[in-house]
This record gives sequence, structure tokens and C-alpha cells, in this order.
Amino acid sequence: MANLNVPTFCLITGASRGIGRSTAIELAKVVAPNSSFYLLARNKAKLEETADVIKKELDGKIDVTCISADLSTEESATKLYNDIFENIEVARYSHAILVHNVASTGMSKFARELDGVQFLQRFLLLNVTAPIVLTSSFFSCFGHGKDSTRKTIIQVTSSNATTPYKTMHIYGMAKAGRDMFFKVMALEEPEVRVLSYDPGAVDTEMYKETYGTPDSEFLEQLKGYAKQSYFLQPEQSASALIKALQEDKYVSAEVVRCYDVMGMKTDFE
Amino acid sequence: MANLNVPTFCLITGASRGIGRSTAIELAKVVAPNSSFYLLARNKAKLEETADVIKKELDGKIDVTCISADLSTEESATKLYNDIFENIEVARYSHAILVHNVASTGMSKFARELDGVQFLQRFLLLNVTAPIVLTSSFFSCFGHGKDSTRKTIIQVTSSNATTPYKTMHIYGMAKAGRDMFFKVMALEEPEVRVLSYDPGAVDTEMYKETYGTPDSEFLEQLKGYAKQSYFLQPEQSASALIKALQEDKYVSAEVVRCYDVMGMKTDFE
Repeated sequence: MANLNVPTFCLITGASRGIGRSTAIELAKVVAPNSSFYLLARNKAKLEETADVIKKELDGKIDVTCISADLSTEESATKLYNDIFENIEVARYSHAILVHNVASTGMSKFARELDGVQFLQRFLLLNVTAPIVLTSSFFSCFGHGKDSTRKTIIQVTSSNATTPYKTMHIYGMAKAGRDMFFKVMALEEPEVRVLSYDPGAVDTEMYKETYGTPDSEFLEQLKGYAKQSYFLQPEQSASALIKALQEDKYVSAEVVRCYDVMGMKTDFE
Repeated sequence: MANLNVPTFCLITGASRGIGRSTAIELAKVVAPNSSFYLLARNKAKLEETADVIKKELDGKIDVTCISADLSTEESATKLYNDIFENIEVARYSHAILVHNVASTGMSKFARELDGVQFLQRFLLLNVTAPIVLTSSFFSCFGHGKDSTRKTIIQVTSSNATTPYKTMHIYGMAKAGRDMFFKVMALEEPEVRVLSYDPGAVDTEMYKETYGTPDSEFLEQLKGYAKQSYFLQPEQSASALIKALQEDKYVSAEVVRCYDVMGMKTDFE
């Protein structure tokens, strides 16, 4: 078991909605007072809705900072992250958690039609490069090795990383690539815990965005999943994530499936 | 069995040395006269060495065009590819082969130290984005669907796509991501054959570049592999690739290991 009830630094990307918002709220419930949460996303109003839930439910015992930024620009991925970590009082926290949640599906064409270099590079910046440099800033701040602050990195992955679905080409690519990146990091940093979390099929705006697929067969499949008993609300998936963190039985950087944590059966792998 | 002895269009990236050069030469030996080979890489002199071998061995029966370009720039990944495919007489060829061979290891730091956005974006351009848009140009030229030109895409992958090795973070990430990208493409394009080829441990300049790893344990492992009987010369690995193409038993986009084609045992997976 891992004791999460300690003063905690936590940074979550894509915290304005969906799984990011629910993860921020569920995590805030289990950490100790004097924790600090940094919520990042583009939409400031929605970020503040997340912050309000945390502040109200927890009676102001947790500092919440909202940072509105487009994480798919080079400026965000360098200056922003350095700025955030420059002002952290490391000694205040017993545990530092970084949650790589933000993602985009990048889906609108078939793989053979992907001709936009700038579109692809921007997609990779948000989904791959920014998480890597954010992690680097996180390590610069909290140190590495045995005597550094206890650290947990949560990276949200997907079944698309291991199962090919039509038109989920670059999304699956980014998730598969990132899973491997963190497996290497877990080898290099045995004292850091990496939770590669597959949240399952979740009722989010992103899930509905995938209905824009140009493949009608896949669209039917997606709509079918959304009618199943294993189609989850964001807070259900976030609760299972917290359970996995608390039980602390996962192998660092091996994918943990929400459904396995919940003991729930699905009709797909 | 697949009949490779037909007039063939073939474009190979990274054809100036190593596995790319050997693949160009071994492929040229099995195609029919009136085939055209396009060799791409940065080093013009070395590209022309590859071209000379092909021209001499095959008595001028194959057109060889050398294109010297830095494939890690945005210009190459768009304009260059369009320019090449603009001038292709599609009707001349019965078979079109695209070989994604060029790659860089990107290895010099530990994963926690990767703070260079521009370095990472450039790495992803060469290893991921450029192959995707090159494939798109290839499809624009040769069409898609059942009535289009017969097409084979060879993409060189690595054991790093499935096995984490210290400091091989972004290399493994790019290979794992690209493998998934092509699995989705193979689903979308059932009439195209994708050979995801793991060439094994091969005596190339790239292999020696990995000796620059900052992890001494991994360095010893690499040097150990280089002394084993399964450490291959580039032409051995390229010959096995041709054998896999000819036998045509591979599942599109499932990884084919050189060692399995050769029936050779290794002391790793």
C-alpha cells in the first residue's frame, strides 16, 4: 500500500474536463492538507470550475493554481514549464505527482492521406514532446535518485497503443511510443513510480470527438461501446486510478487497465 | 510466393550506408530490367557509391537516381517528396516499393534529461513525420484500392520497439509508435503489403554510434552483442529481408525478425 495522505505537489495537464478533471478531484480528496495542485489546460473558465470543486470539497486546505495555456506550442513546452517549477518550494512536499493526461486524437483522415507536416509536428508536440520536456522540468525540480523527493508519474495511455483501430493511426502511434518511452524511463529511474493507466472507454468529449472518424465501421464500433455496461463516467475511471495508486501493486510503466482494477469484464481485450 | 522479378519503382531512405545500402543492392538484384531506384540520404558521395554498385552489377538495366537531402527538415518532408513523385510514370511499373530505412538513435542523455523541444521535434520529423508524409506522397502517386499499382512498404523497425533498453528512450518510442501507425494502415489498406522488418543486431555505423550511450551497463551489453555469432553484416540482414518478401508469408505490419527468417537463435527475445 502507498500512503497518499501526505503533503503533495501535483501537476495535471488537460484538467479542464473529462478524465483530467476527475483525476484532479479524486486525487485532491486523498492527499493531505497543505498540498498544491497545478491545473493546466487551454480553457481557463473550465479549469476554474475544476479548481472550485477542489476548493469547496476540501475547505481550502489545498492550494490550487490554474494555468491556461495551449500546450501544443513550443513556448508552452519550454518556458511555461520552467516558470512553474522555478517557484516550487520542494521541501514543502513529501510526494510529487505529475499527471500526463492531455491528448488529442488527431483523427480526421485515413493514414494514407496524412500529408500535413506542420499538423503532424504539432500533434507530436502536444502528445509526445511536451510530456517529455515537462517530465524533464519535473526531475530538475524534485531531483532524481534515492535521496530525492518521492515521485509518481501518471501517464494516461489507451487500448489504441496495443490494438490497431482504423483511423486511430497517429493517436495509437503517440500512445504506443509514449508507453515505450516511459518503460525506458522506469528502467533508468527505479525509484520513480510510473503508472501507465488505460482509463477504458469513458464518457468524455474526446470520446465523442472520435465520432468524426471517416470510417463508418469504426464509428459503429465506437457507438456500440458507448452503450455497454463497461462504458464509464470519468469519476469511475479516476477512482480506479486512485485505487491502483493506493494498492501500489503495479509494475512501474507496465500498462494498468482500469477494467482490471475494477474487476470488470469487457468484450474486447 | 511473391514474384519480385517485375519492373519496379523503389524508393529507399538512408541508402548511403548500412542496412539501407545493402537493401537497395539486394533488391536491385531481384527486380526486372527497366526498374527505377531512388536513393535518398544526406551524403551524396556515399549515395553514388551505392548507385555505382547497382549500375555495375546490373549492367545498367536499372535507372538509379540519387537525391541528397537532409530528411530531418520540413522542406524535405513536403516539397522534396512531392517533387519526386510528380515525375513518376506510374504505368511503367508493376510494383512500387517504399523503404523507410533512415533513422537516428537520438541517444545521448537519460530520459529525465531530455529538455530540448527543438531537438525532439527534429528527431520526430526524421523518424516519424517524414515517413508518414512520404507514404502519403507514395499513395498519391500510385493510387490506393484494389485497382491501383501493387504496393509494398518496408519499414525498418527494431527490438527497441518492444524491449526497453536504458537510454534508448526516444528511439524505442519512435519505433514502437511507427509499428502501431503501420498496423493501423495495414487495417485500412488490406491490398498493400507492409513488411515491418527487425533487422537484428547489425554491424553498421549506427550500431557503433550507440556506443555513445551514457549508461555503462548498456554499453557493455551492446559490445557483447557485437561479439556474438548472431551479429550480422548488413548484406546478411538485407538478404533475409528479400527472402521474407519473396516467401510472402508475413502478416502485413506484424514485425518480422531477421533471426526468424534466418532460423537463427539468439540469447535475447
